[in-house]
Amino acid sequence: MELTNLHSLSAAEAAGLIRDGVISSAQLVESCLARIREVEPGVQAWAFLDPDYALAQARAADERRLTGQPIGALHGVPVAIKDIFDTADFPTEYGSPIYAGHTPSRDATVVALLRAAGAVILGKTVTTEFAYFSPGKTRNPQNPEHTPGGSSSGSAAAVAAEMVPLAIGSQTNGSTIRPAAYCGVVGFKPTHGLISRYRALALSRSLDHVGLFARSIGDIALITERLVGYDENDPDTKPRAPIPFSQIAAEEPPLTPMFAFIKTPVWARTDEDTKLGFAEIIEQLGSQVEEVELFPSAEKAWEWHQTIMSAEMASNLERIWQRSVGGLSEQLRWQIESGRKALAIDYQRALTQITPMQESFLELFEQRYDAILTPAAPSAAPKGISSTGDPGFCTLWTLCGMPSVSLPLLESSDGLPIGVQLVGARNGDAKLLRTARWLAAKMAAT
Amino acid sequence: MELTNLHSLSAAEAAGLIRDGVISSAQLVESCLARIREVEPGVQAWAFLDPDYALAQARAADERRLTGQPIGALHGVPVAIKDIFDTADFPTEYGSPIYAGHTPSRDATVVALLRAAGAVILGKTVTTEFAYFSPGKTRNPQNPEHTPGGSSSGSAAAVAAEMVPLAIGSQTNGSTIRPAAYCGVVGFKPTHGLISRYRALALSRSLDHVGLFARSIGDIALITERLVGYDENDPDTKPRAPIPFSQIAAEEPPLTPMFAFIKTPVWARTDEDTKLGFAEIIEQLGSQVEEVELFPSAEKAWEWHQTIMSAEMASNLERIWQRSVGGLSEQLRWQIESGRKALAIDYQRALTQITPMQESFLELFEQRYDAILTPAAPSAAPKGISSTGDPGFCTLWTLCGMPSVSLPLLESSDGLPIGVQLVGARNGDAKLLRTARWLAAKMAAT
Repeated sequence: MELTNLHSLSAAEAAGLIRDGVISSAQLVESCLARIREVEPGVQAWAFLDPDYALAQARAADERRLTGQPIGALHGVPVAIKDIFDTADFPTEYGSPIYAGHTPSRDATVVALLRAAGAVILGKTVTTEFAYFSPGKTRNPQNPEHTPGGSSSGSAAAVAAEMVPLAIGSQTNGSTIRPAAYCGVVGFKPTHGLISRYRALALSRSLDHVGLFARSIGDIALITERLVGYDENDPDTKPRAPIPFSQIAAEEPPLTPMFAFIKTPVWARTDEDTKLGFAEIIEQLGSQVEEVELFPSAEKAWEWHQTIMSAEMASNLERIWQRSVGGLSEQLRWQIESGRKALAIDYQRALTQITPMQESFLELFEQRYDAILTPAAPSAAPKGISSTGDPGFCTLWTLCGMPSVSLPLLESSDGLPIGVQLVGARNGDAKLLRTARWLAAKMAAT
Repeated sequence: MELTNLHSLSAAEAAGLIRDGVISSAQLVESCLARIREVEPGVQAWAFLDPDYALAQARAADERRLTGQPIGALHGVPVAIKDIFDTADFPTEYGSPIYAGHTPSRDATVVALLRAAGAVILGKTVTTEFAYFSPGKTRNPQNPEHTPGGSSSGSAAAVAAEMVPLAIGSQTNGSTIRPAAYCGVVGFKPTHGLISRYRALALSRSLDHVGLFARSIGDIALITERLVGYDENDPDTKPRAPIPFSQIAAEEPPLTPMFAFIKTPVWARTDEDTKLGFAEIIEQLGSQVEEVELFPSAEKAWEWHQTIMSAEMASNLERIWQRSVGGLSEQLRWQIESGRKALAIDYQRALTQITPMQESFLELFEQRYDAILTPAAPSAAPKGISSTGDPGFCTLWTLCGMPSVSLPLLESSDGLPIGVQLVGARNGDAKLLRTARWLAAKMAAT
């Protein structure tokens, strides 16, 4: 076994090699740390990283395996955690100077589940300020002059730069799908309520989702399977039978998938490269894709999303706003102040739009289509790091709590990745991953 | 079998006699109809009643029994439905002239469940306007000069006057417990989310509960057992294992119950008769009751309740307000207009208070007490029918979604019933009924 490029392994490959005793977790983590030493100065994906502590976790995992005790599906595999999830052993600063040095004493549910699956918590990754718009220090690993996207900037960049095979992020508007698209990795935002958000920064109960980053759909399925579950501390999670994500995502679809190409009003903002790329995909798919018009009521979704997000952010961040308003960026202050002025009736009216929209989309899936095909962003990563780009292609699906995945299938004329977004039926997460794998294989074959 | 006073039977007795073929459903319903002819002119409990249709349902039930097919727990037993629950075979006017002649085409979930249990839907009972404050025509069967309470006025009065053994009501503030107390019957408001509210008038998702009326705790348990359940159309219901309400309510408590007597700020409004009555109960209970101070934060509960109720009513009744504001009473208009002005942040702040209060009360139950003892209303039914009285003793428990029951254990100096309210731990509904039966038996024995 060649031990120099272990950091390039997929999580599934790495977990298998560790399980079989071919490599140790310490070797894998050392390789990731070497890669980090090499590329981190240019990328700056990490908010907190302690190489010794990472290696200590890896050695403990190796010792445990040697005792013959049962090991988890991610045993010895390093995972990066966006710095809005509480960790008992790392600071958690939410991307804000107000929380400098903040050290929670408990793990977020997703972190606890990762540890239970044997994962090594490699470190905390850079987030924008409170997972909103104001960027952190991270740069796009494909080109440091360009934004990595946000708000899960460090998680997307760390996976793209092969510093770690898996990372946790979040999405309240476009915070997983957009950085995944800009950095050229697979990003996955599951159905709302599928993964617990307990002890993660709460911006908006109605819109907050846990997001996931990997370099393959198989790895996304592997980590999702460990994280899905009921948590009495997250009122939007529900008890449900376990879903064999890895198995379903790996299967051939029983019927050739049908795609609904939906432009949405954001299509007007797409650049030439994106238009050309989608024309190419649509040509490849032939009779397996049909353009579908968005029902007219959904055109207000962006307005409803802003009403809900600003009102819920104003409530969730109220104490911070009251005590430390001077420590907030102007953008965030504006958003909170806009939310503070919102009327309860407008907020509730926006919330009541969600269910009818979900039902309209469900009909689409029940009648004919396996997934919606749409861009992940209007363009490849824009130049400059003062903005994290346009989340508009994610807003509607986040509002409806529908699962979506971004695949790095296209490329701009200057060689930057362009993300293709597939959106599935609510609670059809495993099937969406299977459809995504089918599409990725088809595009790779042509 | 003496067939003249069948209308006085409990639902459990009647169901048993019908099952055993001792009486028919038609005989029972005829007796109820005769009682209605006698007392309805003075009470005016009914919004819609069709004696022929009631008898037709009863005869159909009798025929079904004779075929030997399995029959439900309420087979042939008449039940009254508050006129805010949709019924496919009766008008549903929500107590408002705006809905005069409105005929839904489907049953509310509770109505469908009652039919599935074999019940005869006897008719629809009077509600205040949209289950809010403006009274209907109903009078208190104990004394027609006094209010029956509201908003479930007709349901409470019909059961109290022995026109029907069981009735369905609702509670968003005090709409079940208060009329039960004023009319001298048992009223039960289960834990929020235990019984589906689908196709009932929606005032406030956070506060709306289905309520139940009977003349005994055993009958409350019998009907509750049929109505509890998950309904995918009511997002606050949850799948759960069936609860044997009748069996648990009938058992002796394994330990002598301990009561926490909580006055709440509303105690300042209680009259002499209520104070004397509670002094008597407390003396009877001796060391089984302790006065407990309400934690200070709960004193704002009445304000939070009003914020939530007015904001959610403004949203739920928005279309009616827009199209028919002139058809609304001044009180209701004021409430909606107050809700329309509410800020989303104040509304959300009120909502976030609920969980911490629920946890404080849960501690009380886990540490020492089986039930909270408190009045159902500040006095017996006030004189006059232009108001439905003071709901203040119900507000806190409705806000917290805790189960509560009103027992007609006391009497005012002029012979009107005074309700004793017991409040239980959330989801401890069956145990609360068992405790209530114990208290009723103890008070009857002394």
